[in-house]
Amino acid sequence: MSDLPARVHIAEVGPREGFQFEPPGIPTAEKIRLIDALSETGVPEIECASFVNPKVVPQMADVFDIAAGIAKRDGVIHGCMWLNEKGFLQARDSGLHTPALTSGSASDTFLLKNNNRTPEQQLDGQRKLRQLYSDHGLGSGPVYLFTAFGCNYEGDIPVAKAMERAADLVSICEDAGTPPACITLCDTIGAADPVQVRALVDAVRSRWPDYPVALHLHDTRGLGIANAMAGLELGVARFDASVGGLGGCPFAGNRSAAGNVATEELALLCDRMGVETGIDLAALVEAARLAEEIVGHPLPGKLSKAGLFNRRP
Amino acid sequence: MSDLPARVHIAEVGPREGFQFEPPGIPTAEKIRLIDALSETGVPEIECASFVNPKVVPQMADVFDIAAGIAKRDGVIHGCMWLNEKGFLQARDSGLHTPALTSGSASDTFLLKNNNRTPEQQLDGQRKLRQLYSDHGLGSGPVYLFTAFGCNYEGDIPVAKAMERAADLVSICEDAGTPPACITLCDTIGAADPVQVRALVDAVRSRWPDYPVALHLHDTRGLGIANAMAGLELGVARFDASVGGLGGCPFAGNRSAAGNVATEELALLCDRMGVETGIDLAALVEAARLAEEIVGHPLPGKLSKAGLFNRRP
Repeated sequence: MSDLPARVHIAEVGPREGFQFEPPGIPTAEKIRLIDALSETGVPEIECASFVNPKVVPQMADVFDIAAGIAKRDGVIHGCMWLNEKGFLQARDSGLHTPALTSGSASDTFLLKNNNRTPEQQLDGQRKLRQLYSDHGLGSGPVYLFTAFGCNYEGDIPVAKAMERAADLVSICEDAGTPPACITLCDTIGAADPVQVRALVDAVRSRWPDYPVALHLHDTRGLGIANAMAGLELGVARFDASVGGLGGCPFAGNRSAAGNVATEELALLCDRMGVETGIDLAALVEAARLAEEIVGHPLPGKLSKAGLFNRRP
Repeated sequence: MSDLPARVHIAEVGPREGFQFEPPGIPTAEKIRLIDALSETGVPEIECASFVNPKVVPQMADVFDIAAGIAKRDGVIHGCMWLNEKGFLQARDSGLHTPALTSGSASDTFLLKNNNRTPEQQLDGQRKLRQLYSDHGLGSGPVYLFTAFGCNYEGDIPVAKAMERAADLVSICEDAGTPPACITLCDTIGAADPVQVRALVDAVRSRWPDYPVALHLHDTRGLGIANAMAGLELGVARFDASVGGLGGCPFAGNRSAAGNVATEELALLCDRMGVETGIDLAALVEAARLAEEIVGHPLPGKLSKAGLFNRRP
């Protein structure tokens, strides 16, 4: 029936994806408070912020203060994101963890509409970034394939198309002598279903059996946790998720569309399936409640509202 | 990998479970409006109301007006629930569909706390009800096993315990010469996980291969759709669900706990897995929005907020 991993690595992306989606004005101290609370939950990795243009994304204008203010903790990677060389260099200066991130989009239309780049321009930019990473002594890093399953403009993305774009990114890493640390398939707009997850994970696995597959799933249409289960049962052992389901889906064309799979619900699913996460579920549920308090409105996650079920009262 | 059914029967329980959970005062005309909208979606069965004591459940004081006011439609079963002989007789008078419902609880403590009955009293009552059904010419009907996976008082319910209580109810039906039309396993408080769903479905199937298994799942802790997928992949072909996720979980000890799995998300999952439901998804999403409008607050369902994904734009 399944090929469950013994342990999964869940990367918490709420502080980046979530606070980026909220209206500007959340105090830096509150963002730090949430990251520090998350650091105490056993989550092994937290994406704290994005190094992007503060004129375009004012929510991230305080990234350096966040980086300087959070409490580092052994065993917790405090990471971040960026889109170009300038962002990477700022991220390096910040002291946050900077994995050698190579990214692209399975949908060319999505890439053009959201990043104003052709596939060729994207690959050229990623090649230069990869060189810059090497210049800074960075080895292998993750490959992120956005809109791996579908996009608003192109609809379903065929597996062959996603594989073609994934291969472009894998080649950049391999050509630099730094093969991918993992290949993260992103359901950027929450379009995927379990059938698609299985098909693409299988295809990536067959072609690159040595590179771990990761899933970055959105719960835009309520299938997020079913997609995660499909991945888990194929042995996928790396997931992104956001506490409380913090964040929305900016590309769903609707501000009330749900964001990432809620970290605490993914951790609960893992726990119930007998898969180790290293996460203290009760602490994570408290962090989800804190996130809700900070943003000042209900988040999509359900577990934090109901509370954990006591299996042996 | 799976034993998916070709087609599933989804019973919409939102008007009963949902309106029962909302504060009293929703106009009867609005309840009828939702039921009529649901009748046009292709959903084959709708639980419209409960025949219970209006002093205890004032939300259901207008059951007769609802029953009289809804538009009947070929191919749609408009059903209802009751807890005792008086409720059944009222239900018969109302003209709503009255399946010969036999029910009990896997958790004895839950039964005592919520219905003030011992298992023996419950079985005695169900035996009398079954006799009454036969007196009214009703043949086989569904068996409902509440708290089949867990309860707030007893925690996890072992498979053996659930099977024992299920066997009691099955015997009542068999002894009356009316074997169960199906055995509905209810995750009444939203405590289940896919491992438990598989274990209990397997056990019921092995013992009673001739009686179809149905699942009544709550999404209290975010695992509802994963539990549904586990059931689907074992070939379960009958589900209860509520439009928009209407309703809460009165037993979770928290008014903001989520209710049943959202019908439109379950229907989407089925559609994506290649399982026929007969449901017009776009119409059902509109009905979920109508439900949200009627109750005047956001419902837990996510698909109705994001909208359907256009796979071939």
